[in-house]
Amino acid sequence: MTSREQHDRLANAIRILSMDAVEKAKSGHPGLPMGAADIATVLYTRFLKYDPKDPHWPDRDRFVLSAGHGSMLIYSLLYLSGYESINLDDIKSFRQLNSRTPGHPENFMTFGIEVTTGPLGQGLGNAVGFALAERHLAAQFGSEVVDHYTYVLASDGDLMEGISHESIGIAGHLKLNKLIVFWDDNRISIDGPISLSDSTDQVARFIAHGWNAERIDGHDPEAIAAAIERAQNSDKPTLIACRTTIGFGAPEKAGTSSVHGSPLGAATIEGARKAFGVDLPAFGIPDDVLSAWREAGLRSQDAHAEWKKRAEALDSSKKAEFERRNRAELPESLGGAFDKLKDSLFSAPKEVATRKSSEIVLDAIADHLPELLSGSADLTPSNNTKVKAFTEVAPGDYAGRFVHWGIREHGMAAAMNGLAQHGGIIPVSGTFLVFSDYCRPSIRLAALAGIHSIFVFTHDSIGVGEDGPTHQPVEHLAALRAIPGLMVFRPCDTVETAEAWEIALRTEGHPSVLALTRQNLPQLRLEAAQADTTARGAYEIRSAEGEAKVSIFASGSEVSLAVEAKAKLDAAGVPTRVVSVPCMELFFQQDETYRAKVIGTAPVRIGVEAALRLTWDAIIGSDGGFVGMDSFGASGPANEVYEHFGITSDAVVAMAQERLGR
Amino acid sequence: MTSREQHDRLANAIRILSMDAVEKAKSGHPGLPMGAADIATVLYTRFLKYDPKDPHWPDRDRFVLSAGHGSMLIYSLLYLSGYESINLDDIKSFRQLNSRTPGHPENFMTFGIEVTTGPLGQGLGNAVGFALAERHLAAQFGSEVVDHYTYVLASDGDLMEGISHESIGIAGHLKLNKLIVFWDDNRISIDGPISLSDSTDQVARFIAHGWNAERIDGHDPEAIAAAIERAQNSDKPTLIACRTTIGFGAPEKAGTSSVHGSPLGAATIEGARKAFGVDLPAFGIPDDVLSAWREAGLRSQDAHAEWKKRAEALDSSKKAEFERRNRAELPESLGGAFDKLKDSLFSAPKEVATRKSSEIVLDAIADHLPELLSGSADLTPSNNTKVKAFTEVAPGDYAGRFVHWGIREHGMAAAMNGLAQHGGIIPVSGTFLVFSDYCRPSIRLAALAGIHSIFVFTHDSIGVGEDGPTHQPVEHLAALRAIPGLMVFRPCDTVETAEAWEIALRTEGHPSVLALTRQNLPQLRLEAAQADTTARGAYEIRSAEGEAKVSIFASGSEVSLAVEAKAKLDAAGVPTRVVSVPCMELFFQQDETYRAKVIGTAPVRIGVEAALRLTWDAIIGSDGGFVGMDSFGASGPANEVYEHFGITSDAVVAMAQERLGR
Repeated sequence: MTSREQHDRLANAIRILSMDAVEKAKSGHPGLPMGAADIATVLYTRFLKYDPKDPHWPDRDRFVLSAGHGSMLIYSLLYLSGYESINLDDIKSFRQLNSRTPGHPENFMTFGIEVTTGPLGQGLGNAVGFALAERHLAAQFGSEVVDHYTYVLASDGDLMEGISHESIGIAGHLKLNKLIVFWDDNRISIDGPISLSDSTDQVARFIAHGWNAERIDGHDPEAIAAAIERAQNSDKPTLIACRTTIGFGAPEKAGTSSVHGSPLGAATIEGARKAFGVDLPAFGIPDDVLSAWREAGLRSQDAHAEWKKRAEALDSSKKAEFERRNRAELPESLGGAFDKLKDSLFSAPKEVATRKSSEIVLDAIADHLPELLSGSADLTPSNNTKVKAFTEVAPGDYAGRFVHWGIREHGMAAAMNGLAQHGGIIPVSGTFLVFSDYCRPSIRLAALAGIHSIFVFTHDSIGVGEDGPTHQPVEHLAALRAIPGLMVFRPCDTVETAEAWEIALRTEGHPSVLALTRQNLPQLRLEAAQADTTARGAYEIRSAEGEAKVSIFASGSEVSLAVEAKAKLDAAGVPTRVVSVPCMELFFQQDETYRAKVIGTAPVRIGVEAALRLTWDAIIGSDGGFVGMDSFGASGPANEVYEHFGITSDAVVAMAQERLGR
Repeated sequence: MTSREQHDRLANAIRILSMDAVEKAKSGHPGLPMGAADIATVLYTRFLKYDPKDPHWPDRDRFVLSAGHGSMLIYSLLYLSGYESINLDDIKSFRQLNSRTPGHPENFMTFGIEVTTGPLGQGLGNAVGFALAERHLAAQFGSEVVDHYTYVLASDGDLMEGISHESIGIAGHLKLNKLIVFWDDNRISIDGPISLSDSTDQVARFIAHGWNAERIDGHDPEAIAAAIERAQNSDKPTLIACRTTIGFGAPEKAGTSSVHGSPLGAATIEGARKAFGVDLPAFGIPDDVLSAWREAGLRSQDAHAEWKKRAEALDSSKKAEFERRNRAELPESLGGAFDKLKDSLFSAPKEVATRKSSEIVLDAIADHLPELLSGSADLTPSNNTKVKAFTEVAPGDYAGRFVHWGIREHGMAAAMNGLAQHGGIIPVSGTFLVFSDYCRPSIRLAALAGIHSIFVFTHDSIGVGEDGPTHQPVEHLAALRAIPGLMVFRPCDTVETAEAWEIALRTEGHPSVLALTRQNLPQLRLEAAQADTTARGAYEIRSAEGEAKVSIFASGSEVSLAVEAKAKLDAAGVPTRVVSVPCMELFFQQDETYRAKVIGTAPVRIGVEAALRLTWDAIIGSDGGFVGMDSFGASGPANEVYEHFGITSDAVVAMAQERLGR
């Protein structure tokens, strides 16, 4: 048998499993796995560094299936190459409830999947993060323990989505030369031929962004191998445009949009199996083909063993640090750094914007937490995410701890998810809260996949002032709080900001948002002896003298306004308490006793937030009072805008008095 | 005086007004207006077709300031060229509350502003819509009445944002040759030199997307004029990369990031005024310069008069139709088409998915509503937004009524906003509800600016089934309902879908979302004699026999589930009513009497929606019961996924019984 014939038999095993699984599930996408089987086979049998026995090997090559709808490709690869996470029964349970083989690859369901993909373009964006993580960690720990490639399989859709622009722009700029993208150039989309909607010269496009790019026949294994070798030796990231036939091997249907997202049907499958020269029942792979695949899966055993030796031989403190980082375990000194910071705040309170508070926190912890990799989408002076300890990541120089992402919120957030999923890094970023909309699909995936990304969003309300309604978030807090599993912090002062940061850092497996002000705020937390704090999501920050008649609930910049209103109400003989609500997600996780205690029994409940009411009903009740926004904002000096929309302590007092019937 | 000297004096007038207005406001962005003043001056004094006396002239050239932060550029241009919407006092009120000169251009505040910009990339995306609108209307009404250019001024940020990729991709593909983009290539961003974050060859990039592109000196008026002439004669859209100095004319600060977003300060301003040779107090423009500008503003008077003649000379039915379209007045026959459709539904009920219902509606109204321009982001067979009457828009052939947008949700939504703002067109689009996140910034701007775009989002819940949590929206209804002024419809059957469509079409000045199912639903509305309907936002669709003990509130696919639960509860002797809630936004606009009537007095209230509870508290009360989602979904057959998450009529019955204490 020629090596080409052997290659074809291995590739056809992917095709068989894919078409059979989709057929059995009665839904799914056979077109991509069949079309890209040759690329995947060359990669997994000749190039990719991986160990099916240890899917978490830190220095494995990463393979990202950005075109997540082709999930049967990766499930086939994992099964064939010998990962324990996927057996033949799993393949037969494709797209069934609670299976390890859901419709799109979910890394939290299945070991061996690097990242959850499906929403197009995200995987490519994640891969930029993987590739940057590799360069950054290699700069920190040395190429003897960090030296791997990141491979991506991207579809037309991945390259048409806007996020691809942001991702390839920053990758090209930073010269992430170990990033290798296969474009499955099958010229078919759901609507029909790609020529219906696109005429981009992708190779020229990538070259314009500082990439290598070349075209090959995506069904020619030697062409694929040669292109990978060239890519591996390049000083730039590489696009390999692989001309393929979607649904390769499916008689008559191959090359048409009908194979993209539907089962092939019994007749076509029979024809395909015949063309593949396999006379076995559904899911049947010739024994020698499976053996050859399993052998290929062992290809990197020696490399893995060598790597272990090198990792063992690291200088002992470096070794301990490398292992700590890979275990995602925070350094012991971090707690002390936070304690020291909070002590200093109690002894010398600060009246600063919470974006500045966040900078103070970062400054205090930066040296204790080398895994923090910060950045901003070209709002560095506004987001305050760059502190002295953070030098810059630059093309060819990856040791720095701050990334100038450019005006690329979506690409930044997707790359952060990759940085976090790589391991060894906690990514932090900055932009304005209103632009959380620009990266929302990546924030959602972070929450879905439990990714430890920390999104700093400053300029968090109409307090933005003159920039006006296009730049004033009013619905964004509600929209972000709506994402399951995302912790949205809106701290009221520097102490709460420090607490929010510590929780965000310590809560592995959850992304966090920090919503921070542009404008200065007084420090409200003045004593260490606070019974409950940010960790409980909401807590009484000012108690009533005597039995409370009014409870005011507020977050962020409106807590100080609530405290002002309390003083006025107290003076008017109305005992009032103030509850700070820095994180609703955490508050709703507390037990009922605690929640009831915090909500209290005062006859009047009022929520205050310079945003929409939406998320507050669960705290103030649907009959509670609310001082906030019910429209978009307006351009003007911030204090005037607050007055204009009636978000003032006087408005809170008036509402309380009215509700008390005075 | 040479023409160059005269040009400089005109351009410096923009610089003076911009720096002085920012200085007076103590905030704003002088850098761009000063850097791009030469481009704007050449355009407004020599090329742009406009009439300050009639900002709504349908065949005016469109100018879009995509870099909206440079708003003083457009305010200066409007004032100088003689628009009544901006006088010198308005300029002096820059960025003040309720002024016509807010921080970013808001077209709903100021005539002469084509579209609200500021969030980067949006204006470029809108401009693609303007340019397509022009070609489409020219194909429908003839070039004698529709023949204009669309000009854009874009910044580095506009070109770095992902949306720019989607926008230039479709514009290049469709050969929108009357779209001309000036790139203000000043090589400065907020963080510093653009080289910190980008090394893209923009000219090569645009060429890869099928554009013309060339580099010029953005301060050389003759080079600018020559480039515009070449662009006007091109068969492709054109990028003119204009090398400029940010803050041109500001001594020492020009060319640095310090002039981007801060006042220049008195000393720099004095130096600049001296360099401009103007010895006048702040806001002072030499009389002859203002006169020259005003004269330039009258340049197109003859063209406008000629156009009026041609418009008058149109064939009378075409003329009436052209005028009707420009008035955004719906045809009289539309009401009849809806009535006829609803009659047919009452006589022959349909059990179809609401995405199919929507197709039935489009089919019924397509011929009556030639202003509908539909499309899909490569999900045409799934979104059902293409009906027989809709032929395709293709490169060079713009008469069709359906756009294959490609996998470009964000570019599509931004272009729709441009199509709608152009006038004469009601844009409709399709993608999956989960991908509303990908175009959320454009949906927000549609709501903010009151743009009549209609977003069809199908596959609106866990009913998506096998595609799994990456493709199952759970938080999107809440997140969309959070956007002020956006009507989010989730109809329960074909009748409600028709009603939703009619309201969406008739509500000029508001965008709408139609959230539609993948799965089939029974028709619940069977009689014409329904007292209240979708127009009320929520209404009793099934009344209780006797005094209701239970009220069930539901939307979309869960209304039929609520009706099932009602039958079971009725059978168990629990009188139950069902309220359909197709549009919360409309319901909350009803008077208190109506709202109280619909909410009713039953002791048990239960909301049912296969989504998060968030928006329901205002209807069911924070103590109401809710059957829905509180996490992401899961991959599996749709009915099993519903069972898995306990969204069943039995669960509703059990909750009702429990709450009744049975």
